[in-house]
Amino acid sequence: MLNEPNPVLLFACEGVDTAAWTAALRTAAPGVDLYVWPDAPDPAGVTYGLAWANPHGFWRQFPNLRAIFSLGAGVDALLGDQSLPDVPIVRMVDPSLADGMVEFVVMRTLHHHRLVHLYEQQQADAVWRPQRPPLTGRRIVGVMGLGELGGRCAQALAALGFQVRGWSRGPKAIEGVATFHGDAGLEGFADGCEILVCVLPLTPQTEGVLNASLFERLAPGACLIQVGRGAHLVEADLLAALDSGRIAAATLDVFRTEPLPAGHPFWRHPAVRVIPHAAAFTYPETAARVVAGNIGRLSRGEPVPDRVDLRAGY
Amino acid sequence: MLNEPNPVLLFACEGVDTAAWTAALRTAAPGVDLYVWPDAPDPAGVTYGLAWANPHGFWRQFPNLRAIFSLGAGVDALLGDQSLPDVPIVRMVDPSLADGMVEFVVMRTLHHHRLVHLYEQQQADAVWRPQRPPLTGRRIVGVMGLGELGGRCAQALAALGFQVRGWSRGPKAIEGVATFHGDAGLEGFADGCEILVCVLPLTPQTEGVLNASLFERLAPGACLIQVGRGAHLVEADLLAALDSGRIAAATLDVFRTEPLPAGHPFWRHPAVRVIPHAAAFTYPETAARVVAGNIGRLSRGEPVPDRVDLRAGY
Repeated sequence: MLNEPNPVLLFACEGVDTAAWTAALRTAAPGVDLYVWPDAPDPAGVTYGLAWANPHGFWRQFPNLRAIFSLGAGVDALLGDQSLPDVPIVRMVDPSLADGMVEFVVMRTLHHHRLVHLYEQQQADAVWRPQRPPLTGRRIVGVMGLGELGGRCAQALAALGFQVRGWSRGPKAIEGVATFHGDAGLEGFADGCEILVCVLPLTPQTEGVLNASLFERLAPGACLIQVGRGAHLVEADLLAALDSGRIAAATLDVFRTEPLPAGHPFWRHPAVRVIPHAAAFTYPETAARVVAGNIGRLSRGEPVPDRVDLRAGY
Repeated sequence: MLNEPNPVLLFACEGVDTAAWTAALRTAAPGVDLYVWPDAPDPAGVTYGLAWANPHGFWRQFPNLRAIFSLGAGVDALLGDQSLPDVPIVRMVDPSLADGMVEFVVMRTLHHHRLVHLYEQQQADAVWRPQRPPLTGRRIVGVMGLGELGGRCAQALAALGFQVRGWSRGPKAIEGVATFHGDAGLEGFADGCEILVCVLPLTPQTEGVLNASLFERLAPGACLIQVGRGAHLVEADLLAALDSGRIAAATLDVFRTEPLPAGHPFWRHPAVRVIPHAAAFTYPETAARVVAGNIGRLSRGEPVPDRVDLRAGY
C-alpha cells in the first residue's frame, strides 16, 4: 500500500462524555485521524462520521464521507434527516449496550413477575400482604421486537423458565420462544400475555402499536415494560388501562418527549415507574472497538454488519 | 414385606393453604396415610410430622415419630422448641423455593446495580437524571451465607458477570466466587463491597451480624439486600447508615417483628423497600414431592439429605 491516507473520523455527538469517547477511540483505532466537531479539518477530508443528536443537514457538508456510524442502537432520529448523504448508515451494536438491555429487561420482568410493584403500593399504606406468584413456567411474557436486542432478551427470559412469546415484523425462529409476526400475528401474540416487553425499533408501522386495542388482549392485570421508543406508546391509552386495572403497572424508559416534562402525569402515577432513558448505555471502551472494526472493514472494502436498511427504517 | 403399615403423616402447619398442600401430598405420596391436625389419629400412630408455626411442646405428644419435616427452609423457629423429640429434623429444600430465592436476589441485585433505587427517589421529585452504572465486571457483590440458597445465589450472580465474594461460617469453594469464612474473614469480605446480600441462617453467632461495624467496611453508597432473618440486622444501625449515606438503599424482606408494625420507620423511609417476607415461597406441588421422597428414604432406612445439624442450628 502506497501512502494510503489514514481514515479521518469526525466525532460529532452532542450530550455525551466526549473525553471518555475520544480516549477510547484513540486507543481502539490508533491508525485513524480523529477530530472532534467543531474542531474539524477541511470538510472534504472527512471520510467517516460518528453521529448523535446532530441538526438536520449537518452531514451533507462533508462530500467525501464513506459511512456514518450512529452512536446508539436506535437510528430513527438520524434517519429523520432527509438530507443524509447516500452512504452506508451503521447502527451501534455495542456488546455492552446489548448486555445492559438484557439486564434491564430481565430485572424488570422479574420485578413485575414477583409483584414488587404491588409491594411498593402496599408500602405507601404500611400494608403487609405477601402474595405467592405463579412459577415462571406458568407466566406468559411477550417480547415485541426480535432483533439484536429483543432476540437476546427473549432468549434470556426463556432461560429463566418463563413461557416466552415473541413478535416481529417478519418471521423469526428462536429456540424456546413461540414466535408470531406481522399484523396478522399480533392478536395471537398478545392474547393472555401477562408481562409485555417492547424492544421494537420505531418505524411508521410500529408508531402507536402500544395502544388500547393491544392492551385489551392482554391478561387482566398485565404489566408493561417499554424500552423501545416513546412514540410506540399511546400515552392516554396506557393511563386509561391503568385506571381500569387492565394494566396493573408499567416500567417506562422512553417517552414521546424526553426529558419527561415536569408536569406529566406519569411522574406521579403510583403504578408507573419512570426510568430516565437508562435501560441501556453505550460504553465508550467497548463501542470504540466496534467503530474501529467497522472502519477497518470499510477501508478494506468489506461489508459491515449492522448496516441500516433504509427502506425498513432500522 | 408382610403387612408393613403405611407411614402416617400428620400435617400441622398454621397459616398456609391447607387444601393445596393436602391435595399435593395425596398426589405425591399415595401410599402415605395423611391426617390434618386437629383431625389426628391416636397420637401413637403418627410416624411423620410436617411442621410450621406450631406451639412449643406440640410435637412431644407423638411418641412414635420417626422424623419431623419443616415446611420452610429456615428452622430457627422450630429449633426454638426445647422439647422437640429426639428424631431427625429435616429442612425443606424445595427446588421452587430455591429458584424463587435466586430470582429475587438476582432481581434486587440488578435493581440496585442499575440504580433504580435512585430513579425511584428522583421520580418523587420529577427529576430526570440518568446515570451510567459500571459494567457488572466492575461491580463487587458480597453474599453472606453459602448454603443451599446462598451458594446458588452467588453462582447466579457470578454467571451475570459480577465480581462475587462469598462469606460463610466454615471454608467453602465455589467456582467464580472469592470465598471468605469465619470471624477472621469478615473484614476482607466486606471491604469495598458495593452490594451486600444476606442469605444466612439465624444462629446465636449470626444474630446482629448486619451492624454498624460491618457497614463501615462497605463501599460508600453500598446497597443491602436482606433475605436472611430479621434478627441478623441491627435496625438502628441501618437507619443511621442510610442517614449518613454510608448505605444508599436497602431491600428488606425479613424483620425482627413480622408483620412489620404499622409505625415502624422502615415503612416510610424513601431508601428502604419493604417486602412482606415474599422473597421465596414453598410451592406445594414441588415441595410435596420432596416430602414424599424423604418419607420413602426414611421408611427404607436410608439417610435423608438436608437433615438439620442441631449443634450448628441449621
